[in-house]
Amino acid sequence: MASTSAPARPHPLQRLNDGEILKAKDILAKSHESGEGLRFRFTYLEEPKREDMVKYLAAEHQDAETTTTLPTLPRMVKFVYDVIKGPGDHILADAVVDIDSGEVVHKQTHPTESQAGYAPFEFGEFQEACSNSDLFKEALKEFELPPNFTITIDPWPYGGLDPDEAIPRYMQGLVFARDASKDSLDANHYAYPLPIIPVMDFNKKELIRIDRLATGGQGDPLEPAAASETPKKLFANSKSAEYVPELLDRPLRTDMKPINITQPDGASFTVEDASLVSWQKWRFRVGFSPREGAVLHDVCYDNRPVFYRMSFSEMTVPYGDPRPPFHRKQAFDFGDGGAGRSANNLGLGCDCLGAIHYFDAWDTDPDGRPTLAKNVVCLHEQDAGIGWKHTNFRTGRAVVTRLRELVVQFIITLANYEYVFAYKLDTSGNVTLETRATGIVSVVSIDEGKTSAYGNVVAPGVLAQNHQHIFAARLDPAVDSYAAGDTAVVLEESHPLPDMDPATNPHGNGYEVRRTPLEAAGFADAEPRLNRVVRLESRSHKNAISGKRTGYKFAPSATQLLLAHPDSTQARRAPFARHHLWVTGHRDGELWAAGEFTNQSRGEVGGVQAMVERGDCTPVVWTVFGLTHNPRVEDWPVMPVEVHQIHIRPADFFTSNPALDVPSTKNDASVLVSSSAPCCDGKGEKPTAQEEPASHKQGAGPDMKPKDIGSGSSNGSGSGGKDKKRLTTLLSGVFGSKKD
Amino acid sequence: MASTSAPARPHPLQRLNDGEILKAKDILAKSHESGEGLRFRFTYLEEPKREDMVKYLAAEHQDAETTTTLPTLPRMVKFVYDVIKGPGDHILADAVVDIDSGEVVHKQTHPTESQAGYAPFEFGEFQEACSNSDLFKEALKEFELPPNFTITIDPWPYGGLDPDEAIPRYMQGLVFARDASKDSLDANHYAYPLPIIPVMDFNKKELIRIDRLATGGQGDPLEPAAASETPKKLFANSKSAEYVPELLDRPLRTDMKPINITQPDGASFTVEDASLVSWQKWRFRVGFSPREGAVLHDVCYDNRPVFYRMSFSEMTVPYGDPRPPFHRKQAFDFGDGGAGRSANNLGLGCDCLGAIHYFDAWDTDPDGRPTLAKNVVCLHEQDAGIGWKHTNFRTGRAVVTRLRELVVQFIITLANYEYVFAYKLDTSGNVTLETRATGIVSVVSIDEGKTSAYGNVVAPGVLAQNHQHIFAARLDPAVDSYAAGDTAVVLEESHPLPDMDPATNPHGNGYEVRRTPLEAAGFADAEPRLNRVVRLESRSHKNAISGKRTGYKFAPSATQLLLAHPDSTQARRAPFARHHLWVTGHRDGELWAAGEFTNQSRGEVGGVQAMVERGDCTPVVWTVFGLTHNPRVEDWPVMPVEVHQIHIRPADFFTSNPALDVPSTKNDASVLVSSSAPCCDGKGEKPTAQEEPASHKQGAGPDMKPKDIGSGSSNGSGSGGKDKKRLTTLLSGVFGSKKD
Repeated sequence: MASTSAPARPHPLQRLNDGEILKAKDILAKSHESGEGLRFRFTYLEEPKREDMVKYLAAEHQDAETTTTLPTLPRMVKFVYDVIKGPGDHILADAVVDIDSGEVVHKQTHPTESQAGYAPFEFGEFQEACSNSDLFKEALKEFELPPNFTITIDPWPYGGLDPDEAIPRYMQGLVFARDASKDSLDANHYAYPLPIIPVMDFNKKELIRIDRLATGGQGDPLEPAAASETPKKLFANSKSAEYVPELLDRPLRTDMKPINITQPDGASFTVEDASLVSWQKWRFRVGFSPREGAVLHDVCYDNRPVFYRMSFSEMTVPYGDPRPPFHRKQAFDFGDGGAGRSANNLGLGCDCLGAIHYFDAWDTDPDGRPTLAKNVVCLHEQDAGIGWKHTNFRTGRAVVTRLRELVVQFIITLANYEYVFAYKLDTSGNVTLETRATGIVSVVSIDEGKTSAYGNVVAPGVLAQNHQHIFAARLDPAVDSYAAGDTAVVLEESHPLPDMDPATNPHGNGYEVRRTPLEAAGFADAEPRLNRVVRLESRSHKNAISGKRTGYKFAPSATQLLLAHPDSTQARRAPFARHHLWVTGHRDGELWAAGEFTNQSRGEVGGVQAMVERGDCTPVVWTVFGLTHNPRVEDWPVMPVEVHQIHIRPADFFTSNPALDVPSTKNDASVLVSSSAPCCDGKGEKPTAQEEPASHKQGAGPDMKPKDIGSGSSNGSGSGGKDKKRLTTLLSGVFGSKKD
Repeated sequence: MASTSAPARPHPLQRLNDGEILKAKDILAKSHESGEGLRFRFTYLEEPKREDMVKYLAAEHQDAETTTTLPTLPRMVKFVYDVIKGPGDHILADAVVDIDSGEVVHKQTHPTESQAGYAPFEFGEFQEACSNSDLFKEALKEFELPPNFTITIDPWPYGGLDPDEAIPRYMQGLVFARDASKDSLDANHYAYPLPIIPVMDFNKKELIRIDRLATGGQGDPLEPAAASETPKKLFANSKSAEYVPELLDRPLRTDMKPINITQPDGASFTVEDASLVSWQKWRFRVGFSPREGAVLHDVCYDNRPVFYRMSFSEMTVPYGDPRPPFHRKQAFDFGDGGAGRSANNLGLGCDCLGAIHYFDAWDTDPDGRPTLAKNVVCLHEQDAGIGWKHTNFRTGRAVVTRLRELVVQFIITLANYEYVFAYKLDTSGNVTLETRATGIVSVVSIDEGKTSAYGNVVAPGVLAQNHQHIFAARLDPAVDSYAAGDTAVVLEESHPLPDMDPATNPHGNGYEVRRTPLEAAGFADAEPRLNRVVRLESRSHKNAISGKRTGYKFAPSATQLLLAHPDSTQARRAPFARHHLWVTGHRDGELWAAGEFTNQSRGEVGGVQAMVERGDCTPVVWTVFGLTHNPRVEDWPVMPVEVHQIHIRPADFFTSNPALDVPSTKNDASVLVSSSAPCCDGKGEKPTAQEEPASHKQGAGPDMKPKDIGSGSSNGSGSGGKDKKRLTTLLSGVFGSKKD
């Protein structure tokens, strides 16, 4: 492996460091005229072309002697930024800078239709615009707040433009009030929504409109009621919704005793070269982008490639409340905000337990200077229960091993909401993509005492609107070969046989497995009734045992797809959310299920639909899954996690269970917990000797001795013993050699 | 709570103890004539009538003063047994004995059509019949085994009878050979299947037939080839398939460092009265039956009932190989064998980690004497990742809590196969039903070099046949009320609105939630495209916040249903496996999805289909899920677990997130793992002071300070800090009181 001799320059897939960003920024700045200001939005590692990179990887995966033959690939930075020629005169651009050559190898400006995701500085601009707005002050006069309540505004993407809207750059805000008498900036303002939405025009840098919101319930019209003559008293009967411990309305529970997870001999993984992770025959690189968060590169098992690249690509969160302007509540949390840039700085002993390694990433400030995003990805092992077990019922010998997972996790905060994303690789050769939704559900005002068809009342006057979360993960497969197109995509289904035909299915129990190769770009949906699975199969390698192609497989999740009307703006912006599986051709840098520029889009540009229409099919696989979230009262004020997993499993990739060599070592740290109350009658829990039954005397059956723990095996795997002595005699060696 | 004053007699739902079984057996024996022998098959606690029991529970859940008013309910034992009047003359019976009154309160004999599940003594009888069979010896002459191979036969249920078969009691056997030269009874015989199936008649106590098996591949006929003139050499190119560590063909991995899970302050749960478990506001009793394994009774949260009873009721494992006699490979592992009686004796540090409590159960030997089933259920807590999290992006303050689960687990072995069943209750108020499939897949012979449409070649000459596992769990709900019928079952679905109607859905984003109460007994299927969920709702209690009925909900798993032809015997035996959800009326003792007597059944008697036809609807809810298992090579020789979960979640049961009071305590046992290789270039991982960026000077954006760990909060929940200083100023207090 080349990694033992430290490379003189960063690995081509290594995350950018601060020096590289600075150098690239300077190169880019020099390429612009002196009168032009640059405002940086997103900074990416521009990954090498796949075609070049796989040559590098092929060489890298040879033994150490070949290290010197590794191709030299340029280190490149991609910037998405504004070119500012004067007040209000700016244009969106992107550029790719080759750090080695010092050249800008690509530069492009974009029309107004293409709006980049919001950068944090814009949240500040939006707040200033609200502070300075007479329009907003005027709108607030409609309401009377209790004393000590202070207005707090959550910036939100504006969503898709209405057909008649022009295309400046907008932002909308959800308006709340915070009870300042609690003397904490962490008092939860979401308990106090106000029924107005300010809209800002970034070109004018001011609020241009305040949308008044309907607050009615069942049977009320879609439009907001006319403003009353006198200020409307808000929050008279509201209920605070605190979640920070010192503000909580109830004592913390004290009966939850600590669970400690320790690794006395340390972690089983190693991290080399700041990104190369090796663990239990798995090996991959951890990348990070401001849009995707953690990305896995070059995922190999036992030096055999499985995936060239795995990432969470996009998500859309459309709201189902039909009352305007709520149709504009549709976030694309990757494209509009940036999942990577929203990543939390993780804390030891908080976000995961055990022996943890953290990865940092470098982002940029608006001037293009590097800013450190500390601890944005964590890596740890965890026990995941029984991995495999078998008890030989004749001898009572049980062998049981644990399943262990390696977790690459990052967590993002998008205003009120949180998502926990994880890649889990395990000792059985599986890769699991996990998403947990948590945080605070998005709420709006509802007249007290009313209920709504559009959501659930989670607190007095607070309506949590029905919505969906639909995610797309992008899989660039490389099953046993990096070569483009060397992995085939096949749908496999199990079908009943139509007839009880004496020639083919005489007793009606037969079923058949059908295969449909997907050779053209296209989409498909989950079909659990047919047990539809997607197989990613090597065109060049076969399993020596079964004779089938080596492969990995997964079942697309049969979750609800986008509910919005196909002609709606919500649907036109997110075609990816209308099918569970997309298979497309590969193009370098084409990573976005809904296209690069989702912000304020009216329809998808350059997403999976466009890729399918283009027609080439290398293939790249996109798996779409979601969660229709009609909130429960339990989701308030912070929602318990809702977990979704996709299990990607080897399918004739190995010639036997890859976890067969996992030791069945007994864990000596486990302890017995006795009944905490005395055994009242000496029965049931604590049999004494005289209570043990005599062995039975009748019939041809085996001895029915009390079942015992363990089987006397010496490797600690002795659980599962069953009545055995006589059975052993009876069941072994009926015929043939009686050697044992 | 009544439990603090120890009851003088076992709780009505307490598992039977040995003294009770002995007493009941003696009472039953006396009720029979002296010439009649009794052979015991299954021994159950006969639970009190639900109607009586709920009165008891209502009283029990009052405060301690009311203890004395607890009704006295009889302790009763149900036996399923054979009455033997002479050699070959036996009849199946069941009886219920009241231990207190000393009376047999029910006794019934059954016609030959009703065959009880196999008892372990029958496995011995079957082996003896094989040993003594000239027919079997003759059949073996068709084959020549390598030296030192010894025949080993796995007893199997006979499956459904063919239309033309009489109804004696049968058993079939799958025949393998074990390599005795390995000098271990744990050498894996499944690698060496022989293509014959002996069939035994239990009335005659002898083999009546040896079925020869087809061993062909693609394109070969369904019928077995004619026997060759000379003995066929078997296993010449076979490959051993060992899994016990000392026989393994590869070294055990040595790089998997221990993960210890410790609870320095002990477990958070208590077990009183040998069965009453209290943990984190949950409270329930652990029962155990020889057929169901662990059963949960009276599942309450914060003294509010949720379920009267939860159990795994049945499973069927039909094989899809149409070649006779493989259509008879269809096990009902609860009805034909008994999941409880097949339960493993669990081992500390093997089957679960941490602080473990074990439950024992008493079974009976064929003479009706109690036999101890030790450690058949384990109970422990585990960490399940992040439970809920929110980061206030203005202040950087993050509050993150862990999700903790309490696991009630049992594991069953059925010849080659294993299942791990678990009930998981957690701090978010969820109940998860988990099933893990593992063990050794069922295999048959295939001619070397051939492949098959009916399964996968997992080793040379070894075909793992395609099959399904379809499970039914039984839920007897008691949401906020024990009263029969007080819980309503409602299907809830999310539907797109058909039109972009200006009056109802002007922008097309609206969707509606539809409710369909299930007031009549019936069935339904999973519909993930409609986000179909089953709500179990109280008819008597409403949520004070939302105004909706208090409830719990789950999404029926959209797994493939039974593939066998509707007219096949396989399908007629298991109507439950043809729909995902059944809602039926409650009858005491009616616990079996496929009816009480599944063994050799031709069709369901008394299962969910019969209950639906009967029409009453109290209701009891049955959720059906499964796994179509077309084996992978990776499933050999022992299959990595395939996990299935059903999540039953509160839905407006609580008035806020029930885990809000879970402390966000930092876990101090977690440790940092540094890069194990030196940081080659000082970049990326270890920024030094001078590498940190200056704060930017331009524009209206906030300070882009390096992200830091934690936010200085004192409760250990300080992860997730984000750029905050300037944002705090900007975002807080735009209007209103500026107190903070």
